Amino acid sequence: MSIEDYKILFLEHLKNKIKVKEPKNLYEPIVYILNLGGKRLRPVLTLMSCNLFGGNNKEALDAALAIEMFHNFSLVHDDIMDEAPLRRGHKTVHEKWNLNTGILSGDAMLVLTNQLFESYGTEKYKELMVLFNQTALKVCEGQQLDIDFETRNDVLISDYMKMISNKTAVLVAASLKMGALIAKTSEVEAQRIYNYGLNLGIAFQLQDDYLDVFGEDNFGKQHAGDIIKNKKTLLYIKTLLIANNSDKNRLLNLYSFENKNNDEVQEVMNLFKKYKIPEFIKSKITSYTKKALESCSQLSIRDANKKLLVEFGENLMDRKI
Amino acid sequence: MSIEDYKILFLEHLKNKIKVKEPKNLYEPIVYILNLGGKRLRPVLTLMSCNLFGGNNKEALDAALAIEMFHNFSLVHDDIMDEAPLRRGHKTVHEKWNLNTGILSGDAMLVLTNQLFESYGTEKYKELMVLFNQTALKVCEGQQLDIDFETRNDVLISDYMKMISNKTAVLVAASLKMGALIAKTSEVEAQRIYNYGLNLGIAFQLQDDYLDVFGEDNFGKQHAGDIIKNKKTLLYIKTLLIANNSDKNRLLNLYSFENKNNDEVQEVMNLFKKYKIPEFIKSKITSYTKKALESCSQLSIRDANKKLLVEFGENLMDRKI
Repeated sequence: MSIEDYKILFLEHLKNKIKVKEPKNLYEPIVYILNLGGKRLRPVLTLMSCNLFGGNNKEALDAALAIEMFHNFSLVHDDIMDEAPLRRGHKTVHEKWNLNTGILSGDAMLVLTNQLFESYGTEKYKELMVLFNQTALKVCEGQQLDIDFETRNDVLISDYMKMISNKTAVLVAASLKMGALIAKTSEVEAQRIYNYGLNLGIAFQLQDDYLDVFGEDNFGKQHAGDIIKNKKTLLYIKTLLIANNSDKNRLLNLYSFENKNNDEVQEVMNLFKKYKIPEFIKSKITSYTKKALESCSQLSIRDANKKLLVEFGENLMDRKI
Repeated sequence: MSIEDYKILFLEHLKNKIKVKEPKNLYEPIVYILNLGGKRLRPVLTLMSCNLFGGNNKEALDAALAIEMFHNFSLVHDDIMDEAPLRRGHKTVHEKWNLNTGILSGDAMLVLTNQLFESYGTEKYKELMVLFNQTALKVCEGQQLDIDFETRNDVLISDYMKMISNKTAVLVAASLKMGALIAKTSEVEAQRIYNYGLNLGIAFQLQDDYLDVFGEDNFGKQHAGDIIKNKKTLLYIKTLLIANNSDKNRLLNLYSFENKNNDEVQEVMNLFKKYKIPEFIKSKITSYTKKALESCSQLSIRDANKKLLVEFGENLMDRKI
C-alpha cells in the first residue's frame, strides 16, 4: 500500500467514526479541527508500521485515530497558548468559537483519545495506554519547556533538542511503535521503530523551523512567524553561540521587540545567513535523518519493507529544503 | 474506619505520590491545587466503598487519587472558563500563574489521571478506564451544557437536572463504583452503589446551589455568586415557571444585567422566597437523598455497612441547610 492509500483508509475511518452529537457546541469544534486536512503523518505511520510488521492495518485504525485525535487536541490547546489565528489556512478553534470552547473541546478530545483505544483487548489496551500516557505527558512537558523558553535567555542547544523531542518527536515515535505493538512484534523491534520515529521526528521539527524562515510555502502559516514572535529556535540559539559581540547584541536587541517589521525580519534572516545557519540546520536534519535510517536498518523485517521506511523518511525530509 | 480516617489515609498517599518535578512550571500548579484542601469527598468515597464491599482499601488508593486528580483538573479548567479568582479561599491556578499554565497543567493532570490507574492489572485497568472515560466525557458534556445555559432562555428543569447529573453527580457515582470494582463485587451491586452516588451527587449539587444563595458559610466562595453571575440554577428556572408575569419579567430583567448590586441580589432572593423556592429545593434534595438511600437499602452488604452509607449521605446533606 502507498502512503496515499493509508491516508484514504484513515480518512474513511475518521469520517465513519467521528460525528457531531449533542451537545453540539462541544462536538462541532472537534469534527471541525479533525477535518481541516493536513498530511495525516502520524496515523499513516501507525497503519504503515502495523503492516510492515506483518499485522492487519485495519486493526490499527482505532489507534491511528486516537493518535490523530490527541495530536489535534494538542493543536487546539497550543493554538490558544500561542494566540494563533490560523491553522492550516483556516480559523483556529478559539478564533472560530471562543476560548472556553477551545479549552473544553480540547479536553473532550483527550478523553475521546482514551476511548478510541477501548476497542483493543485488555492486554493490548493497557500496553497501548501506557505508551500513550508516557507520550502525552512528554508532549505536555515539551510544551511547557517551549513556553518557558519565551522568558529565558539561557536556552542551550541541548534544552532545545529536549523540547522538540518531547513536544513533537515522541508522538511520531509512538505512532510507529503502536502499529508495531498491534502487529505483535517483539519489544526489541518495537524499540527500533520507536527510535526511527524519534529521530525522524526531530529531523522533521528542525525542518519545520527551517521552512518557517527559509521555506517558500508556509502551509497557511505566517511567513517567518518564529522570527516575528521571537521564538528561540535552534536557528536563533546557534547564531547567538557563534556570532561576534556586535551581531549577538543586535540579535538580542531584535528579539526584545514585541513585534518586528519586514526590515527587521530581513535583518534577522541576514544574520542567520551570515553565520551559515541554514547550512548548520540542514546538516543537523541530515544527521538525524541518518540516525533514523540506521535504526531502520537494524530491523528484522523484509528488505522491501525497510525500503518503504527509508523512502518514507527521505520523502518527508525532501519537502522544499 | 471513620470518614476522617479515610481522609487521612488518602492525604498521606497524595503527599507520597504527587511531588513537584521538572519542568517546575508544569508540576508546581498541580501540587498547589491538589493541596488546597477540601473535603476530599470523592476519594474518600472510593476508599470507603472498597472497604464496604470487602476489599482492601489500600488497593483503592491509586484509583482514589486518580479521581481526585481528575476532579482537580476539572476545577482548574472550569475556573478559567468561569473567570473565577478564588478556589477554596486561595487564588485559582490561572490567577496565581496565568492562562497558559492553567490550560497546560490541567491537561497534564488529565494524563496523570490515566497514569494513576496503571498500577492495576490489565483486566481491572481496562474496567476502571472504561468507567473513567465514560464519566470524564459526561463531565465535559455537563460543563458544555452549563456554558450553553448562559446564553439560553429556554432552559427546562430537565435540562438543568441533566447538566448537574453530568457535571457533578456521575463523578461521585463513579468514585463509589470504582471502589466496588476494586473490591471485585458483582455488576449488580456495583450498579446499585453507582445509583446511590448518582442520586446523592444530584442532591449534593442542588444543596450547593441552595447554599450559594441561602447558606451562611460559603467556603471562601463569593456569596450569592450564582445570582450575581446570572447562573440559571434550579432556583431561577423554577421561579420563572411559577411566578406571575410581573415578577417573571422583573426576574428576567434582573438576570439581563452584567452584574448586580446588593439591592438587586436581595430582590432576587426575595423573589425566590416569595415563591417558596427554598422549600422547593429542599424537598428536591430530600427526594434525591431518599432515592440514594433506597439504592443503598438494596445492597447485599452487611447492615452495619449499609448504615455507614446511610449516615454518610445524611451527614453530607445536613451541612447548614
